[in-house]
Formats: sequence, C-alpha cells, structure tokens
Amino acid sequence: MSPRRSSTSSSSSSSSSDDERDHHQKYRRMINCNPGPAAQPREILEQAHRELFDYQNTGISVMEMSHRSAEFENIIKTAEQLLREIVNIPDNYRVLFMHGGGTAQFSAIPLNLCNKFKEQLVNYACTGVWSEKAAKEAEKYCIVHRVLPPKKLDGTLETIPDYSDWNINPEGTYLYYTDNETLTGLEYPIQIQAPISNPKMIVAVDMTSNFLTRKFDVSNYGVVIAAAQKNIGIAGVGVVIVREDLLGSPMPICPLTMDYTLWNKNKSLYNTPSCYPIYMCMLYLQWIKKKGGLEEMERRARKRSELIYSIIDQSNGFFYNPIDPKCRSRINITFRIGGGSKGDDALEKLFIDECKNRNIIGVKGHRLVGGIRISMFNAMRVKDAEIIADLMRKFLKKHGQ
Amino acid sequence: MSPRRSSTSSSSSSSSSDDERDHHQKYRRMINCNPGPAAQPREILEQAHRELFDYQNTGISVMEMSHRSAEFENIIKTAEQLLREIVNIPDNYRVLFMHGGGTAQFSAIPLNLCNKFKEQLVNYACTGVWSEKAAKEAEKYCIVHRVLPPKKLDGTLETIPDYSDWNINPEGTYLYYTDNETLTGLEYPIQIQAPISNPKMIVAVDMTSNFLTRKFDVSNYGVVIAAAQKNIGIAGVGVVIVREDLLGSPMPICPLTMDYTLWNKNKSLYNTPSCYPIYMCMLYLQWIKKKGGLEEMERRARKRSELIYSIIDQSNGFFYNPIDPKCRSRINITFRIGGGSKGDDALEKLFIDECKNRNIIGVKGHRLVGGIRISMFNAMRVKDAEIIADLMRKFLKKHGQ
Repeated sequence: MSPRRSSTSSSSSSSSSDDERDHHQKYRRMINCNPGPAAQPREILEQAHRELFDYQNTGISVMEMSHRSAEFENIIKTAEQLLREIVNIPDNYRVLFMHGGGTAQFSAIPLNLCNKFKEQLVNYACTGVWSEKAAKEAEKYCIVHRVLPPKKLDGTLETIPDYSDWNINPEGTYLYYTDNETLTGLEYPIQIQAPISNPKMIVAVDMTSNFLTRKFDVSNYGVVIAAAQKNIGIAGVGVVIVREDLLGSPMPICPLTMDYTLWNKNKSLYNTPSCYPIYMCMLYLQWIKKKGGLEEMERRARKRSELIYSIIDQSNGFFYNPIDPKCRSRINITFRIGGGSKGDDALEKLFIDECKNRNIIGVKGHRLVGGIRISMFNAMRVKDAEIIADLMRKFLKKHGQ
Repeated sequence: MSPRRSSTSSSSSSSSSDDERDHHQKYRRMINCNPGPAAQPREILEQAHRELFDYQNTGISVMEMSHRSAEFENIIKTAEQLLREIVNIPDNYRVLFMHGGGTAQFSAIPLNLCNKFKEQLVNYACTGVWSEKAAKEAEKYCIVHRVLPPKKLDGTLETIPDYSDWNINPEGTYLYYTDNETLTGLEYPIQIQAPISNPKMIVAVDMTSNFLTRKFDVSNYGVVIAAAQKNIGIAGVGVVIVREDLLGSPMPICPLTMDYTLWNKNKSLYNTPSCYPIYMCMLYLQWIKKKGGLEEMERRARKRSELIYSIIDQSNGFFYNPIDPKCRSRINITFRIGGGSKGDDALEKLFIDECKNRNIIGVKGHRLVGGIRISMFNAMRVKDAEIIADLMRKFLKKHGQ
C-alpha cells in the first residue's frame, strides 16, 4: 500500500491548479460520502503529510507547537484572514475559533445573545433534527418560540414554508434557523438565505453543513456558526462569525469556553485551542482560495447535486426523494429505493453493497429516516459525483421497472 | 530537510523498545520544553505519518472518518481500554473524552457535581493560577469556599500547607485542587495525592500537567480531569474519569457538551468528538504501555527533574527556584538566574538564547512570573534533560560566581 502513496508521488500533484483530473486510481481508493467527519481534499492531506514532522523549518510538528508561538499565531491569523477574504466578511464582524463543534454553539448562541436568564424570548425555525436540537438546548436559557409548526412526529419538514406564513414573535431577541438540515437534505433556497421579516431582528444561522459551498451576505446575520469537519477543517473546532455590537453582555452563567466576548478579546487564544484542527482549517481555506473561492465551490456543489437529482427525477419514482424540489439540499441528498417513501429494504441494502464494491462509502441514510444519503461536501470532486450517478443509472436499469 | 525525515527511515525506529537511544541528531532537531501543547514521542508522529492517508486499509484518513464508523468506535474504545489498563481504573468509574480542554472542565465540574444553582458550597484549594481560575469559574454556579489563604497577590503559593491547616468546610459538595501548577512548578508530593480530611468528601482533581507521569489511586477521587496536549494526545480533547454514582443529576443549566451524564450515556459520541486528537491519545497510550506504563513514566519524570534540580541545588543560588523542595514539580521546573528571586534579565535572556542555539526551545517562563521554565512531559527523553542539565552546568561555570 505504501509505495502507491509514497511521499515522492505527492509533490507532482500539489502544484497542479486542477484537482478535477483523474488522479483517483493513482491516489485515492474511496469516494467518501460520509455526512461528517467527511473527505478532505487530497492536496490538503498531502501538505499535512509533508509538514507533519517539521512545520516551516521550526523543527517541530504543528501538533507540538505552543499556541502562544509566533508560528501558531500566524496559522490562526492566516485562517481568519483567508476566511474574511473568501466570504467577504465586513470589518464589524469578528471571527472566532471555538471548542466543541456545532452542538456547543447550540448553547453558546442563547448564552451570548441573551443576558437575562430565562427572561428573554427567542424565535426558532425548526425544520429538522438539528434546528430542533438547537431549540431544545436554548430552552435551558430562554423562552423558545417556534415559528414553524412541526408537521411530523420527528419534527422534520419536507419543505420550508413561505416566510409570510412564519409566526415570528417581533419581541424575540433573535431568530435562529439551520441553513441545511444534514439529516434529511433540506436546504434554504439560495435566493432567500436570511429570512428576515423584521429588519431589526438579529438572525443566527447554523451553516455547518453548507458553509463555504455558496456565497452569502454576512451582513444579513448577527451570528453565523459552522462546525469544522464538513466543508472546512477537521473535527474539534467551530467557526463563529459574530457582529461586534452583539458582544459584551453574555449571560453571567456562560461558561468560559463558550463566551464570545472573552474569545474575541483573546483572539481565540484564551485557553489552548484545537490547534491541529485549526491548522487543517487554514489548509482547507488556502485550497478553496486556490480553486477559485466560493464561486467555484458553488459551481461544483450545483454540478454534483444536479448529477444525482437528475437520475432521481428520471427514475419514475424508483429513487424517491421526499423534499420539495426548491428546498433540495445541494450537499446531502437523501432517497429511498424501489418502494416510494418507504423504500425497499433489500434493494437499499443491495445498493449500499454495490457502492461499497465501487469504493463508495458512507451512503447509508441516518437511522431516523433510513434509506440512502449521499453527502457531497467541498472536497468531493465532480468526477466522484459522476461515478455515483453512473452507478445509480446502472442500478435503475437493472432493478427499476 | 525532507531526506533527513524521509518515510523510509521511520520504519527502523518504530519497532524499537528503547526510545532513549541517540536518534536525536538523525531525527529531531528540537528539544521542545513548551508547557503545552508539548512534544510528542517521535514514534507516535511516525505512526501518524504512516497512517495519514489510509488508516488500517480503510482507504481514508482518520481525519475523514465518520465518528459512527466501526473503525473510529474502535479507536475511542481502544483509547479507553488502554487508559483503564495503564491507570488501573476501577469498574465503577467512567472514562469520557470531552470537548474544550481543561478550561471547559472548570465549568463542567461544578455543573455536574452540583445540581442546585448557586445553592451549594464547594471547597477549592487554590495554590496558583490554574486552581484560582477554576475557583473563579465555579463562582458562577456555586458558593466557593477557599480552603487556603492566598499568600501572594497573584494567588500563587510556594508550598502546600499541611493538610491539618486546611480550612475545609465539611458541608461542601466537593473539594477541588490542582495536582501540578504548571505556571510556577508546584506539585503535590507523591505520597499525599488526595488531601482528604473528610473521607466522605468528593475530591475533584485537575491533573492536566502531570497526568500519567506517576501512579495514582483513582478510588481516592470523585473526578479526575486532564486536558490532552501535555502528557497524552494533542490539543482539542479533555479526559474525564468520573465515579459513576456522581452521574445522573447535572445542573439544569449544564450545556450539552459539558454534561457528564449525557457523555457517559453516549460513550463520548453524543456529537462529533475531536476525532483526530482522540486518535493521537490512543497512539500515546499505546506508546506508554509499550514503554512500561506509569512505573516507567514515573522513573523518567523523576530522573529528568533530578538532573535539573541537582544543578539548581549545586549553583549556590545562581539558579534560584522558590518552591518548597518537597512540593517541587517533576514536570515544570521554574527558576530565576543570577539575581535571587528577581533574576537578572540580561543573564536570563542570554540563557534563553544559548538554549535556542542548542535547539532547546520553549524555556521562557510565563509572563506572570518571568524567568525560566523547563517543562518536561512524558515525551521528553532523559537524554534531552541531560543535554539541558549540561547546558546549565556550563552556563553556571561561565557566569556564576
């Protein structure tokens, strides 16, 4: 195995400007459709591999580096600058790298945006499991008002109601929503990313699973959160983009490691951060910039998802996706096979097995909804989506009516 | 640089049972005395390097692996089993891998051991900056009773008062202390690790900086916390060992990611954990076991620290360490040079420069106390401590009276 992946072969690929070419057979065995932690661009792993023992002539690994060293400060600063540049973050927004991923932010958002324990009302637009989890966590600290009626027992929706039908309480301190529900594959349409009915309402958004897969206007938001390990970096760090006027008055019970004001004051270095995951974020951001930024990431995400949805739509219901077409996720595509909304267990098992045979892994749907889920984050090549689409096409031909 | 560190040379060292041999010149440039994140054993980095693209024939990196996969579950389970074996953890204790390092645990301990917000009294033995931080954080959630009078403005002590002089409130829910104050180098003597005056008192200990450097009896404790990145693993994860009867009633305001009960129920996989740092913990634990366990780690820590303290004690005050000899840290050794307790700034700067010239990095003392600090965690070879001692001896000869 090692000769195929020897360090001598890595140098030839890293300088290329096009990762879409077919280096699949030479380099990578797997098409990794895991919903997260997810695939990394090959070039990033190659760079991490090259630098593992010695980061930029320091003689030590990033893993061994003091977070107070000039080198690590430069890593975290570079990551922030790249993110600012790629997303076009206005100057009055702060970028924080925090502990604990998205789930920690479910607590941090109410603990930082509200300052009176259990006295403030907050609006939550619950469209699925993740927004529901966030709302439930906020109930520990606030009075939570749900703006959408849950249609299903598990709280998942198959469409996003018109904003005119949203029951937003204008007295609420903020409005929270989840831009892409990873589990069911429900994504806010690109043209209406910030559902602001009241222009003064602070909007908090969880972009974990579609962060950096399309352009968005930061100034529409009070807070943007995104855990790493999907479209940027590896597990162990969460990115927070917060408008600076919202800092300064967290709830007195807010734990140190969740305090946006403290994190901002200390430039994300109040305590030892998740250094290596932050380094991997920096490499990922460098890669995004090199590939053409969000415009290119958006093009790839659209192309990948179109490849899969077009087979679904041509399958006459053999591949069944329940999501309203205008809210279909470009990132996580769910479907049942051969039995409408219920799916045919045997066919689905067969499909998963055939994927495995072609080195396509991580396609099994979440246990709550079953079926198949194809997750395609920034690192997934369009070519990989073509391979998946090809397999689906053949599977349809063989098993469809 | 790369030929010297090529992957071909790595295989020869990894199988050796003795990392004390001189592979220094061939492999590593730096003697890394950083107080954390700190040096990793070379063999661990080599293994991480070998497995970076393909973990055990999965075809993907650990960084790309679902935390719900059999492979990652095996990593976290192996890490737990190794820790149980190495530390000899009784069956009625749970091992948790949590987000956020030690500082997150400053909040988690009161939030999990107390269940009535601001109603319960807790005892804190503050011996320095870290225990003081923990006490201050606990004040958000409890009534904090300090059992030791602070002797200095910054709260640091140079000795640990006799336990008979401790003013422990027997009504307190628990007693908290810091086993090794990293900043000043004050460590509880080995024979009295758990200062229990009331046998029913729950003891919570922060062992972050001396974890796995000596044997300890887990059954003396209610909770043991240790952030990675010093003696085990890399930054981004905290290890918690907790007696199972203390689970079940966290404070209602406890955030999800700090909830011991939830973490235990979900085997540390409630949300995506810091997967790669946990993998690095597993490698470190395998290394400790291979090298001879805590007995060997303790022998090395004693040997390393004796090498440095013996120069200090022979220096007639040229190297000045303020700590009561019976509480001297085996892990972080602080001293001033050439000017008693104040130190001579020019000489200290010269010493730091001479260290750098010999590839010894990270020896500058914390800004709060100044001077020099030599941090020597499990990964530091005895041979490295000899090199440092040798430099000190020569420095003393040249600049001492």
